[in-house]
Order: sequence, then structure tokens, then C-alpha cells
Amino acid sequence: MYQVNENYLKLPGSYLFSTIGKKVAAYSAEHPEKTIIRLGIGDVTQPLAPAIIEAMHKAVDEMGHAETFHGYAPDLGYEFLRNAIAKNDYQDRGADIQPDEIFVSDGAKCDSGNIQEIFSLDNKIAVCDPVYPVYVDTNVMAGRTGTYDPKTERWSDVIYMPCTADNGFAPELPKETPDLIYLCFPNNPTGSTITKDQLQVWVDYANKVGAVIIYDAAYEAYISEENVPHTIYECEGAKTCAIELKSFSKNAGFTGVRLGYTVIPKELKCGDVSLHALWARRHGTKYNGAPYIVQRAGEAVYSEAGKAQLKEQVGYYMNNAKTILTGLKDAGYTVSGGVNAPYIWLKTPDKMNSWEFFDYLLENAGVVGTPGSGFGPSGEGYFRLTAFGSYENTVKALERIKAL
Amino acid sequence: MYQVNENYLKLPGSYLFSTIGKKVAAYSAEHPEKTIIRLGIGDVTQPLAPAIIEAMHKAVDEMGHAETFHGYAPDLGYEFLRNAIAKNDYQDRGADIQPDEIFVSDGAKCDSGNIQEIFSLDNKIAVCDPVYPVYVDTNVMAGRTGTYDPKTERWSDVIYMPCTADNGFAPELPKETPDLIYLCFPNNPTGSTITKDQLQVWVDYANKVGAVIIYDAAYEAYISEENVPHTIYECEGAKTCAIELKSFSKNAGFTGVRLGYTVIPKELKCGDVSLHALWARRHGTKYNGAPYIVQRAGEAVYSEAGKAQLKEQVGYYMNNAKTILTGLKDAGYTVSGGVNAPYIWLKTPDKMNSWEFFDYLLENAGVVGTPGSGFGPSGEGYFRLTAFGSYENTVKALERIKAL
Repeated sequence: MYQVNENYLKLPGSYLFSTIGKKVAAYSAEHPEKTIIRLGIGDVTQPLAPAIIEAMHKAVDEMGHAETFHGYAPDLGYEFLRNAIAKNDYQDRGADIQPDEIFVSDGAKCDSGNIQEIFSLDNKIAVCDPVYPVYVDTNVMAGRTGTYDPKTERWSDVIYMPCTADNGFAPELPKETPDLIYLCFPNNPTGSTITKDQLQVWVDYANKVGAVIIYDAAYEAYISEENVPHTIYECEGAKTCAIELKSFSKNAGFTGVRLGYTVIPKELKCGDVSLHALWARRHGTKYNGAPYIVQRAGEAVYSEAGKAQLKEQVGYYMNNAKTILTGLKDAGYTVSGGVNAPYIWLKTPDKMNSWEFFDYLLENAGVVGTPGSGFGPSGEGYFRLTAFGSYENTVKALERIKAL
Repeated sequence: MYQVNENYLKLPGSYLFSTIGKKVAAYSAEHPEKTIIRLGIGDVTQPLAPAIIEAMHKAVDEMGHAETFHGYAPDLGYEFLRNAIAKNDYQDRGADIQPDEIFVSDGAKCDSGNIQEIFSLDNKIAVCDPVYPVYVDTNVMAGRTGTYDPKTERWSDVIYMPCTADNGFAPELPKETPDLIYLCFPNNPTGSTITKDQLQVWVDYANKVGAVIIYDAAYEAYISEENVPHTIYECEGAKTCAIELKSFSKNAGFTGVRLGYTVIPKELKCGDVSLHALWARRHGTKYNGAPYIVQRAGEAVYSEAGKAQLKEQVGYYMNNAKTILTGLKDAGYTVSGGVNAPYIWLKTPDKMNSWEFFDYLLENAGVVGTPGSGFGPSGEGYFRLTAFGSYENTVKALERIKAL
């Protein structure tokens, strides 16, 4: 008789955003008269930029003619896209990353969930707390996290690095030595970030203790301040200790288009074993590439027109962030984030816990956010709002919150 | 110090089609004057049907306007697509599959590689031999296959079910009881298939011994004979023992578009644990859906115009299959397949082994095929040609082969 993967049964509750979706759907069904404003899940609302639409139409036409039809994509992704990424996201910033160190994928969620597969099950992970739930959940599914204690809401074999107001939402080097370190800056969910000097400390630490940093730079496009690194490869020595994950979801509105990439430098080795070769093997065996049309859309992100249009789009969302940040401050909330990131992180008022505040806000203001505790125990008492709504809805949501 | 997943290091050689790609590229570079005809990898060559192109243009336009923009897709896929699949691929054939038992994905390769994750590492798999390499390789990566014996080219913990001329390329029930049984009909690589009565024997067996059948029906559209099942759910009792994988790559030419789906009936349970719930959890945690544009393209496959156009496209490839089958027979080859499948399976002549014949055909006829031994030890001495080339190239390839 077959058996299931028992690690799945250890997961407490369902995936955070599935839970929120169900809760909101149930509330909507009960209160069809209420208009709900969704500032919960980090989904974008602005349409794709004209340069991208144009590129996609062109690619669709190509697929309609035998001479220009495209079947299976190359294992690592099309060169035209990998060249554009290497040049724009790395070489132009002084980071020496080559096109053949880039693996194009259908998004950073898949990559951040799958990357753990190339590592031993005995490896110990370290995560910020609070953190994007995918990092921990996928390690739970693989059987790398030990047992769950519902009281502390912690896994026995995970190293938690609290990020709270006390340390400015920046993790400190862990006391216990980890094998894999997940870092995400600008951070989801707190919206905070760290300087290049601070990131250099992590790179030096990883090289010293023999750890790999899995660096999620999905929100890089929102960086507005100087001295905040746009890629971990700006740091000395990162190529021997870091994997970087990037997404097109937030800088180009691709949440429904699906495109991302992972960088694994060829210097990154465990003894003689190249992590690049392992990931290439996974890509070749378990994946068949992002659609040609989508890879052409990705290329358009780096065109002159695309860059200008997306700068405007990011500016639009950052104006929302400012609106939320200012509005919440005016209403007396303690807030952070929202300057180098599209997320605003607020302290729940009146000692409400995160889910209590979720219900309170949904029922009294018709506004959906994300409970901080959904991202980890140190997120308890916090709440995340996103800047990805429309400007009109963002203004309306803040008016409702202020009126509470 | 971190460690890698040592199971990856056990894999002998690289992924089959990556190896072929590199070999052909090297030969091409050395002989730029030769025109090579590729009948190796199962990639299609005909352009997308007009109904699909039209649907994609429309969806691209929708993505360009805020009112019709689509962000993250629902976890299981859009209802419009799941409804069309349930009706056309199942209910119209008398198989009672509901839309919420269908999980839309970016292709059957990913699904067939990832599905093993929801099962225990102690489970034993059974595979046909020869077989699509992804089934075994992904179980190797997970650590489910024991040790590899380079002499026999077999893994110690895999049950091999030989499919050779002796048994008409139809596997017999294994002597040792498996937990997971991978079946693919119409078969890749042999192009053979089994009747509904024969498949019923497998369903009854799986229910009796407590095994799950992972049924890969990627080539279903090529079935031309009666009494060959189009889905495993035509068989009594399949809903308590079978998962079905489907692809849009071969019936609609989506190898570069990326769309597939997996069916997990809600009745399929291991004790109290629903496999549907486990797969839903994986989908929610590690995946973010197929692109909206691609799901609309999938919907168009089921439109009246789409159906008519794709029937013609499949007919085009099956005419190629007939051309290959007849041509090879005329040239004195022993061949099978090609009637209910786009693959022709031939016995290599003059006691050449599979890779010898690969080199022979590439060097002397400029034709690329796939060595049977790449699909498993019982594929040694066989060779696969695909019907997915253009008609002109297929005719030319056969002329070259006949002239040898």
C-alpha cells in the first residue's frame, strides 16, 4: 500500500494567501452590499505597459506562422532575454554576472520553493521572522524542518532571525550556524531593507561559515534610497556564496504573466560540485521553460520604452505607498516600510493580535490586509498593507481607516 | 558547511534530450554545409491554430487595460478552462470528472516530475521499460530509487516492466508489488497502446494491491482506433487509484506555450488523507498558475473552430507518421507505433546499438532521432522517430534513409 509524504501533514493550516482568499470570499458572500478594497495579497492592479503589450502581440503573431513558430525553449531560457538581464540587472551595475549564469523561469515563487531541492535534507535553514511563507513551507514539505511546536509557532530545526522594531527589522547574524540562509531585501513583509555594508557582513559571514545565501530580490525595483544594494552581487565575494532570485511580477506587473529568473554563479561550489550544474539538471529534467511569448514580454521590460513606462508604473505604486504611510501616521499608527518597498508594516492598535485586526479592518472598513503573524511568530501584533491597489482605492481605504 | 542533495550526483549522464541537443549542435558546427532534419525530440513544428492565435491576441489586449487586467490566477486554474476540460475531455466521454478535480499547470513535464513529491520516499515505483526519462530521473533526485548498476542500467529500488516486441510493447503486471505505477498510453517512446480491457486490468490491480497509477495521457489526441481508452477514467474504479496527467503540447502544439493539467479525483485517498488536498497544497505553496493568456489559449482549444483546426493539425502529423511507417517498412525496417501515436519505434538494423544507429543516421542521412536505450535498458536496439516534423522534411528524411 502506498503512503503519502508525511511532511505535508505537519503543515499547520493552509497556505497563508489561500486562507485570506477564502476568508474574504466568505465575508463577501455574506455582505454582497459591501465594496471591499484588497490591500492584502501582493497582487498588482495596473495593466501591462504598452511596450510589453506590443511585444506580446508580435510574439503571438510569430507563433501563428511556421517560419517564426517557437516550440520548446532552450533549457536556461532564450538568449535574447538572458542577455538583456545580464546587461541591465547586473553588468550595468558593476556586477559581473554572465548570461549563462541566469536561469529563466515562470516566477520567483516556484524558484524559491524549488531551490531547496538541490541541497541535502540534513542542511539547516535560517529565515528572517517574519518571512514570506514559501521559504519555510517548502522546507517543511521536503522534511528539513523537524517538528512544529504550536505554542511557539516554531519548527525545531529552523533558525529564526527575529526582525522587529527593536533591531530596525534587520536580522542579526544567528548564534547557531546555518547551512542555507534565506534573505529578502527589500523585505517582504516588513518593507524594510539593509545597506550594502550590512549585506556585505552577511556575504562575509556566509563565506566564512560555508553557508549559501538564497537572496530574494523580488522588490528591487522599489529601492529609492542610495546605498541600498540592487543585487547581492554588488557585494565582494557574493559569487562564491549566493544564489539570487528575481521576479518580473512587481517591477513589470507580471503576476498573471509569470516570469522570473535565478542566478547561480559558476564559482558557487560545494567542494567539486557546481550548484549551477545541479540546478541546470533540475531545470532540464523537471521544467520546460517559460512561454516564448512571455520571454519576449520580459525582453520588452528592458527596452527604452519599457524602462520608461515601468519607471512610471513603479512610481504610481510608490505614490500609493506614500499615501498609506502618511495616512496611517496621521491616524496615529506606528508604521515602517513603504520607502524602498511596496509594503507598509504597521503595529496593530489596542493590543489586538494580527488576525483580530484583520477581522476588525475587514468588518469595519472593508479593507483587506495581511496579518503579520501569518509570516511568522515575530510578525504577531503587526499587519501588512500593500501599495499595489489603484490610487483611488488606496485613498478610499485610508479614508475608511482614518474614520475608524 | 552546507551539503548538496547527493541523489543528484547518482544520475548517470545528463537529461536525454539535453545530450541529444548538444550532440547535434556539435555535429552542426563541424558540418555547417549539411542540412539536418530533426525527428528526435518530440517538438512540434506546425504554427498555432488561428482560433488560438485569435484568443491570445484578445487576452493580450485584456492585459493592457486596468478593467480587464488579470493578476495572480486562481490556485487550480481559471474556471473557464477547467469547465471546458471537464466537459470535453471527460464528461462527454462518460467519465465523471468535475472541474474542481482538475489542476491547471504549465505542462505535463513539470507535473510528471513533481507529482512524486506528495508520496512517501519509501514508496516503490514501477515503470515501463523503455520509458519517458522524467519519471525515473525525478524519483532518483528525490532519493526513491536506491543504487544504480551501470552494467544492467537499472536502479535497485525500481520495478522495471519490459515492453518489447515479445509482449507487443504492453507491460505485464509486475511480480513485485509497487506503490506507484507510471503508465503512459499511447506510449512514449514505443508509440504502442493498450485497449480499454487491458487498462481495466491495471486499474483493478492497483485497487487490489493499494497502488496509485500515474497515468500520462499526453498523446491521447493521436488515438485513431476504437476500444483504445482516451482517459483512464473510462475504466471502472479508476477514481480510487489513478491520477491522470494531460498536456496541450501535442494536441495543440503548445510546446512553446506551456499548458497542461493534472486530474486528482476527490475519491482518491490514502486512509483519511486526500491526495487532492495534498496536491492542492503543493500548487498553492510552490506554484503561481499558468499565465492568463495561455489559459485563454487553452480554452480556445475547445472552441468549435479550435477543435476543427486541431483535428486537421493532428491529421497532418499522423500523415507524417504514415509516411515514416510505410517508408521504413519499404526500406526493410521492423517498425511499430505510428497508428495511435506520433512516434515510430524501429529496430536498429545490422545489430547496431541505439547510439551507434543515432550516429550512423546523423552522419549518413543527416537525420536526428532518439536512441531507444535513452529510455531504458529494454530500449536498447531500438530507435524512435517522431511525426512532428514538417511533411516536406519527413518525406526528405525517408528518402535519405531509403537511400542508405
